Amino acid sequence: MNSGDSKEAAKIKAIEELQKHASVQDLAYFTKGLSSGDTGVLSHAISLVESNVELHRQIANDLMNWCMPRSGKSIRVGVTGVPGVGKSTYIEALGMHVISLGYKVAVLTIDPSSPLSKGSILGDKTRMTNLSMDPGAFIRPSPTSNVPGGVARSTRESILLCEAAGFDVVIVETVGVGQSETTVYEMTDFFLLLMLAGAGDQLQGIKRGIMEMADALLITKADSGNERAATHARAEYLSALHLFPPKDHGKATKVGLVSSVSKTGIVESWDNVLEHLDWMKKRGLFDQKRKAQLLTWMHESIDNMLRHFFYGNPFRKDELKKLESEVLEGKISPFDAAEKLMGNLLK
Amino acid sequence: MNSGDSKEAAKIKAIEELQKHASVQDLAYFTKGLSSGDTGVLSHAISLVESNVELHRQIANDLMNWCMPRSGKSIRVGVTGVPGVGKSTYIEALGMHVISLGYKVAVLTIDPSSPLSKGSILGDKTRMTNLSMDPGAFIRPSPTSNVPGGVARSTRESILLCEAAGFDVVIVETVGVGQSETTVYEMTDFFLLLMLAGAGDQLQGIKRGIMEMADALLITKADSGNERAATHARAEYLSALHLFPPKDHGKATKVGLVSSVSKTGIVESWDNVLEHLDWMKKRGLFDQKRKAQLLTWMHESIDNMLRHFFYGNPFRKDELKKLESEVLEGKISPFDAAEKLMGNLLK
Repeated sequence: MNSGDSKEAAKIKAIEELQKHASVQDLAYFTKGLSSGDTGVLSHAISLVESNVELHRQIANDLMNWCMPRSGKSIRVGVTGVPGVGKSTYIEALGMHVISLGYKVAVLTIDPSSPLSKGSILGDKTRMTNLSMDPGAFIRPSPTSNVPGGVARSTRESILLCEAAGFDVVIVETVGVGQSETTVYEMTDFFLLLMLAGAGDQLQGIKRGIMEMADALLITKADSGNERAATHARAEYLSALHLFPPKDHGKATKVGLVSSVSKTGIVESWDNVLEHLDWMKKRGLFDQKRKAQLLTWMHESIDNMLRHFFYGNPFRKDELKKLESEVLEGKISPFDAAEKLMGNLLK
Repeated sequence: MNSGDSKEAAKIKAIEELQKHASVQDLAYFTKGLSSGDTGVLSHAISLVESNVELHRQIANDLMNWCMPRSGKSIRVGVTGVPGVGKSTYIEALGMHVISLGYKVAVLTIDPSSPLSKGSILGDKTRMTNLSMDPGAFIRPSPTSNVPGGVARSTRESILLCEAAGFDVVIVETVGVGQSETTVYEMTDFFLLLMLAGAGDQLQGIKRGIMEMADALLITKADSGNERAATHARAEYLSALHLFPPKDHGKATKVGLVSSVSKTGIVESWDNVLEHLDWMKKRGLFDQKRKAQLLTWMHESIDNMLRHFFYGNPFRKDELKKLESEVLEGKISPFDAAEKLMGNLLK
């Protein structure tokens, strides 16, 4: 898989292979493999939860139920930023540091369906040369999905699978220009936004609202003569953040500098993650957040399934298009159009 | 209606009166009254769209379809801010200014269901003494609602009714501490956030994300010795906003000062609204936004109806509680729980 285009083909191939695999029908194959931390089985298991084949879904559900009591113990970190900010270089440096502390690290990347990121995600794996070769690491791009909420679901399930396979730190990388940041924010314990110094132009790429989600900002490439600009940007962001409403957890958003070249700031950025978790745990906020995340996940799944049930009817899809046009032409009120589309479902 | 508690009773009474009203079954009563700008009929019509009585809903739908081609021509302004920031004083001053320019102004207030705001909304009407007595003005608090999305629906429909009744400016006030800001942001052309100077503490009340929605910030009570603090706050917000990603429309967020006592800044704040609309219209963004709003409204209505259809089944409501507990205890995965709840609906 060298190009972005071969991604979908690779996914189909992975699922076909899975189907040929006799042991796919054997839950024990997965539970045994995950219990022993076998990354080959972990990879298979992620393909399983990504599959829409009915038989796979059934086993996947059983597997996820098995995972539930065995998961939840990792530190889940979301990392976002525009293309070019240096996400994979940072994640490699962070991953190697975390491994040196004795943790096992899994990296999941999502949002490869965005045209802006096509290829770059696949590139990540090859770019993270050291990390991808380390036995303590597991790197996996998450696929596109045609099911509503599909990417969110498979990423969440992949996190649990990694945890059940014994990974202590799960890093979820997203591109920072799409719809997936809120999703990643909602499934992680710590959400990190990478920024470039000399930010004015770079900001164009960041969606509004992402900055307010961040538990920390990191200014990347603070090296090779760029240190002064980075330090200046840091001061500006700190004073700006001070004016904005505090996060629900009440902890101030730190702004750090990092250089993946001179390897500065990596240790501090990890210490900040641990400090944050400590803050959350001491106040009972960590458990609270994890529980809320489980319920959000359940309710989102229900909403997605409801929409799937509703729009899965091809007649309704056509009717929707027709009613949308009528609404735009001012022929019918949006509410009445909705009632018409619901039809006898409401009676 | 002097207290917040009598609000629900007043609503029930209004609907009962509506039912006794023989002409309620007569669409012409409403269309004729709205065409002639009769505020009594407008008030009746708003009660009609707020009613959940089936007969009322049918007439309301017909009425809204009649309104559609007659609406959309007003300037819709959303105003938010924490309790005590001076929303109603500002809205009264703005309203009187706008009336002096020859416009007719309607003020709708929403989110009275929030415990923080109980009473304050009703207080607004009596506090806006001049505006409420002006024949060019119409002030109406929006009710609480038990239907999901009910407040959003009735507020949107109320905006259209006001427009069909000839109001050129519709101001929607919301409390700035609840869930309704996104809703108001999505149904207005211009979203204004009122802030107090000496902001540090006041910021606690503003939800994160609201600042990023605002098309303009106004620092209130910039008078009686408070001018210096207000000017300082303005400069701080301006430089902070500069660091944050631009809004989709590309126009910088203005930060103004306003005093409803010395009547300064009111004219400028209105000029800013007009300037904003001009910017949007010249770039085709105004039409684009209005169209997107209509489709959002339609899709939200469908989602709400779907949820209503699904959770309207009392068996499912009980089952949901049970499954939520199992998810929190780690006995079942959130996704599997969702599938269980969907049951044979998915087959």
